[in-house]
Amino acid sequence: MIKLGVIGYGYWGPNVVRNFNSVASAEVVSICDFQQSALNRAQQSYSNVNLTCDCREIIRSPEIDAVVIVTPVSTHFELAKMALENGKHIFVEKPFTSSVTQAEELIELAEKKNLKIMVDHTFLFTGAVKKIKELIDTKVIGDLYYFDSTRINLGLFQKDVNVIWDLAPHDLSIMDYLIGPAPVAIMATGMAHFDSDLENVAYITVYFSGNLIAHINVNWLSPVKIRTTLIGGRNKMIVWNDLVSDEKVRVYDRGVETNDTEKAYHQRMNYRSGDMWAPRVDQIEALKVEAEYFVDCITNDKTPFNDGYSGLNVVKMLSATEKSIKRGGELVYF
Amino acid sequence: MIKLGVIGYGYWGPNVVRNFNSVASAEVVSICDFQQSALNRAQQSYSNVNLTCDCREIIRSPEIDAVVIVTPVSTHFELAKMALENGKHIFVEKPFTSSVTQAEELIELAEKKNLKIMVDHTFLFTGAVKKIKELIDTKVIGDLYYFDSTRINLGLFQKDVNVIWDLAPHDLSIMDYLIGPAPVAIMATGMAHFDSDLENVAYITVYFSGNLIAHINVNWLSPVKIRTTLIGGRNKMIVWNDLVSDEKVRVYDRGVETNDTEKAYHQRMNYRSGDMWAPRVDQIEALKVEAEYFVDCITNDKTPFNDGYSGLNVVKMLSATEKSIKRGGELVYF
Amino acid sequence: MIKLGVIGYGYWGPNVVRNFNSVASAEVVSICDFQQSALNRAQQSYSNVNLTCDCREIIRSPEIDAVVIVTPVSTHFELAKMALENGKHIFVEKPFTSSVTQAEELIELAEKKNLKIMVDHTFLFTGAVKKIKELIDTKVIGDLYYFDSTRINLGLFQKDVNVIWDLAPHDLSIMDYLIGPAPVAIMATGMAHFDSDLENVAYITVYFSGNLIAHINVNWLSPVKIRTTLIGGRNKMIVWNDLVSDEKVRVYDRGVETNDTEKAYHQRMNYRSGDMWAPRVDQIEALKVEAEYFVDCITNDKTPFNDGYSGLNVVKMLSATEKSIKRGGELVYF
Amino acid sequence: MIKLGVIGYGYWGPNVVRNFNSVASAEVVSICDFQQSALNRAQQSYSNVNLTCDCREIIRSPEIDAVVIVTPVSTHFELAKMALENGKHIFVEKPFTSSVTQAEELIELAEKKNLKIMVDHTFLFTGAVKKIKELIDTKVIGDLYYFDSTRINLGLFQKDVNVIWDLAPHDLSIMDYLIGPAPVAIMATGMAHFDSDLENVAYITVYFSGNLIAHINVNWLSPVKIRTTLIGGRNKMIVWNDLVSDEKVRVYDRGVETNDTEKAYHQRMNYRSGDMWAPRVDQIEALKVEAEYFVDCITNDKTPFNDGYSGLNVVKMLSATEKSIKRGGELVYF
Repeated sequence: MIKLGVIGYGYWGPNVVRNFNSVASAEVVSICDFQQSALNRAQQSYSNVNLTCDCREIIRSPEIDAVVIVTPVSTHFELAKMALENGKHIFVEKPFTSSVTQAEELIELAEKKNLKIMVDHTFLFTGAVKKIKELIDTKVIGDLYYFDSTRINLGLFQKDVNVIWDLAPHDLSIMDYLIGPAPVAIMATGMAHFDSDLENVAYITVYFSGNLIAHINVNWLSPVKIRTTLIGGRNKMIVWNDLVSDEKVRVYDRGVETNDTEKAYHQRMNYRSGDMWAPRVDQIEALKVEAEYFVDCITNDKTPFNDGYSGLNVVKMLSATEKSIKRGGELVYF
Repeated sequence: MIKLGVIGYGYWGPNVVRNFNSVASAEVVSICDFQQSALNRAQQSYSNVNLTCDCREIIRSPEIDAVVIVTPVSTHFELAKMALENGKHIFVEKPFTSSVTQAEELIELAEKKNLKIMVDHTFLFTGAVKKIKELIDTKVIGDLYYFDSTRINLGLFQKDVNVIWDLAPHDLSIMDYLIGPAPVAIMATGMAHFDSDLENVAYITVYFSGNLIAHINVNWLSPVKIRTTLIGGRNKMIVWNDLVSDEKVRVYDRGVETNDTEKAYHQRMNYRSGDMWAPRVDQIEALKVEAEYFVDCITNDKTPFNDGYSGLNVVKMLSATEKSIKRGGELVYF
Repeated sequence: MIKLGVIGYGYWGPNVVRNFNSVASAEVVSICDFQQSALNRAQQSYSNVNLTCDCREIIRSPEIDAVVIVTPVSTHFELAKMALENGKHIFVEKPFTSSVTQAEELIELAEKKNLKIMVDHTFLFTGAVKKIKELIDTKVIGDLYYFDSTRINLGLFQKDVNVIWDLAPHDLSIMDYLIGPAPVAIMATGMAHFDSDLENVAYITVYFSGNLIAHINVNWLSPVKIRTTLIGGRNKMIVWNDLVSDEKVRVYDRGVETNDTEKAYHQRMNYRSGDMWAPRVDQIEALKVEAEYFVDCITNDKTPFNDGYSGLNVVKMLSATEKSIKRGGELVYF
Repeated sequence: MIKLGVIGYGYWGPNVVRNFNSVASAEVVSICDFQQSALNRAQQSYSNVNLTCDCREIIRSPEIDAVVIVTPVSTHFELAKMALENGKHIFVEKPFTSSVTQAEELIELAEKKNLKIMVDHTFLFTGAVKKIKELIDTKVIGDLYYFDSTRINLGLFQKDVNVIWDLAPHDLSIMDYLIGPAPVAIMATGMAHFDSDLENVAYITVYFSGNLIAHINVNWLSPVKIRTTLIGGRNKMIVWNDLVSDEKVRVYDRGVETNDTEKAYHQRMNYRSGDMWAPRVDQIEALKVEAEYFVDCITNDKTPFNDGYSGLNVVKMLSATEKSIKRGGELVYF
């Protein structure tokens, strides 16, 4: 039985606790939050769990195997470091840390102590992303041309991070998982409103080697909610709309073929417009699968694919967007 | 009766001829194309029109009042200049010219000769754009925060221009018309595929004074066709989907209100989520309205709002995207 | 504090218990189910509640004020009668009873004992139905022409009732609530498959006095889920799509106006095609509001609008469909 | 070269003329209409065609091989009969005739004179219907369970026929073509408004042998336009939405499997919910294909599949709906 302590019981914490509790070989034994109201809510749902407003009580508890950190990103590093130093495995909310050096230090520490880090890139455990990963890995899609994601809605404005740090970790972690090789350069533009200097509208372009380009559109000021990702490949193209209940992933037999016998460039282009196919996608609660996977990695000493390095990749890209946006959209190389 | 000569009878030319012929006080008397097959098509539909493969026959004809130029952009300047020199009003396909200096020279020439220039920014004559313009001008939308447009589909790859010069003139001319003040700076990123050096996927960010930002996503490699523009304002937000037959323009009573009595930034944010309203939009053929307007401007000596300066604004922005994309996405100031 | 006993903890029961427990002045003190597995699930969530497989334990408990019956329809009458005889208020799952005489007997019994009956027509407590009711009552829609509802999906085939008794109570109760006056006649057609004699596809037409007609399309064999109701009125028309998260209720300023000065019938028709408007609809959990309302009706001795008579109206219509379908779609008058 | 005379140049006539003129081996030589304004329109587009307001001029012309009848249904019989008597093949707008006996008389006459009848069931020539036909004929769909079609919009109210005779011929001809065997019985309900006795809202149920049921919902009073047909089969299910430009036909690998080892009916049901697949559908102008087919049938003495018998089938069903609706929705057997 893996015993867990959860730090942070705000918006996402209750989901995390519920799902870890649903894992047969795991148990949340302690929950910490600074807000008494959060602890009261926890009390109502979990009458047998230890509740505390002092996170050290969790981090130092000899009973606890792993610490789940579901707090604002600015606190991740300190809490994660303490937990690792006290011999706890850690499960950390995205984004992993506020800086690249923080992420690197935590990875080093975990390796030295032989502890697991899992970064909560929940989307990687959805049926949709798994299906897309399978389509790419089995060459159904073919060489990738572009990855274009839109993640926009009204609010919630964050107090300490801009819209990129809030929303783009989803797209960046999905992109990193699906594409594999690291990007070559990144750039970002955006705008802040309401007397804040935190961007609430932003656009990110990511260059990869070869002719692969990625783009992410994030916005806290959209009247409508959109969660759509287009992936263009040589053989097939994907449109993933995460907001529909059915047929989230659509695969189009569409594309361009070049005909070398014609001389003029535009005459060499033939457009292929064939069938569309929406493969069945597993309807699972991603966080539940992820929680089981974390417990499994600890129990069987496996390295999770969404480990510290995966978290680091995303933080590297986020940091680069920050540098780029401050320099007026300058291209930042890795 | 205004007599017109049309140069270019390819993809768009037949629409132009049909619509100018539908204007009561106008008549297309001559059509020119270099391709005999195009002239044959014209012959079938318009047996009484003069057909020629020599554009000078039109440009120098004493009978003709105005020349309609529906040819590739690289030929616009030369044809337009000749036409103006021969005392003809001109109606020029978008984009106006290949360069800023070309546009400026044509404007100067037309002013000297007291001739009209109209640039075919057809979308400005649609019911949807007219309705959005009205909503902005009457302050229903309020101060603008962002303009975000997506114009993507499969093909048609052009031989001489990239996807920006092909598709973005629509968005740039609409943006210029709706927003008014000129942008401060522009930048663009993109990617070419298929052994071409012409981008087929591109992203443009446009900065305006104040906190207004615009973004345009154009793509010739999308499996699905999207024509959607979001406009965020202080009072209301618009989603314009040009591909639906009904309710193209949706106005959302949604937004953010800041509450100055709260200290913390994110606590000052209140989200307003009210009704949606889809105003009735005129179902008209935009090109027909535009053709009537051109004839009216000539007959009654009016300056069209989509004149040479309007065309110049778009060419300025297109040229800036070219400079930016060549310099790796560098910000280009105007 | 109103103390409740819940009989039936299958598919819908857990929702009912959770929502009644969320009412400040109410408490579920006892849960009954014949299946031990159901009781085990209840035990996990509600460790302090009395659990039993003998419903008489609940019905006879002096501690309990009201009995909530969430069992198959064939058992409603017996359980409800026992509960009323033992002086308990009752909250009964839809449809109220299996027959008209059963419903009438329960109503009479409740009146004699001065007890409340509430039939769980949950949809009447949704933001969408409340908004539509308001639009009809305030004459925004005008005289009604038709009510046309489609409720189709794949499964779940019921063992004891056909698709009409399973799905149509939603539409019939909504129709009854929105329209008011009782129907004049009803007829139904349908088909059974899979060696069953219970229809899994069915169509119901309901005639009202005046020129109002209603139609309900229910189907357990549809590959796609549809929940759409159209309501046509003299002034406005409504399309309610319950499956979209936003803009569920759309009000169209569309219709027909007759022009008496023209002689020919079809020439007298003018079509009005104006704005569409999607009023903000409350995002509430309907069952929670309904639970509060039941407790309020008991506490303050109010008659619920979804009382036994409301349940009876629906059972009358269901019984008429049964008679009609057995007689080959014959019109059944009330 | 097949020479055609067209009677009727109202709403649909111009489409018919344009498409017959596009057939290489055919030519419209004469157009008739009672309205001078219609003839003026024809004059503008076809300066070389003979124009007349006397249909006998066409029917008796020795030059003409076939007469195309695009007039109100009440005139079809008389015009068609005259044309056949004068040795002309006929192409008749849907519905074929006003009564069964009329249709039968025309069929007999045509057979005696060895002339072709084609009834303009245009939808049978669309890419969508062809694809669905192919899916049914190749057993991809499997045994059919139901056919459920919705064809609703605002207007146009007809002066001489109700909404069934106006809109349902489309659905009935498609159903007849796809399903094959004739129906066993039919019934219809509906309602008239606006002081007319012609129904503007109507519902038709059609019973076939076996367990196949069809339903058609037609409405001139809907605020939104819907053209959707669901077809449920043992192996696959189809949703055909004719209003989308892409992916009109969607094939769902969904259905129900019965498991005979279980005793209880509802326990024997297993729901299959697999992939969705949208086959590429030809983007063709159906009327053009149909025009070519008519000319081909005449030239090569073939019997069209949409011949008089096909038209008769639809008229039989329309007549049965009329009988049913007049008798209060009584089931009418064939």
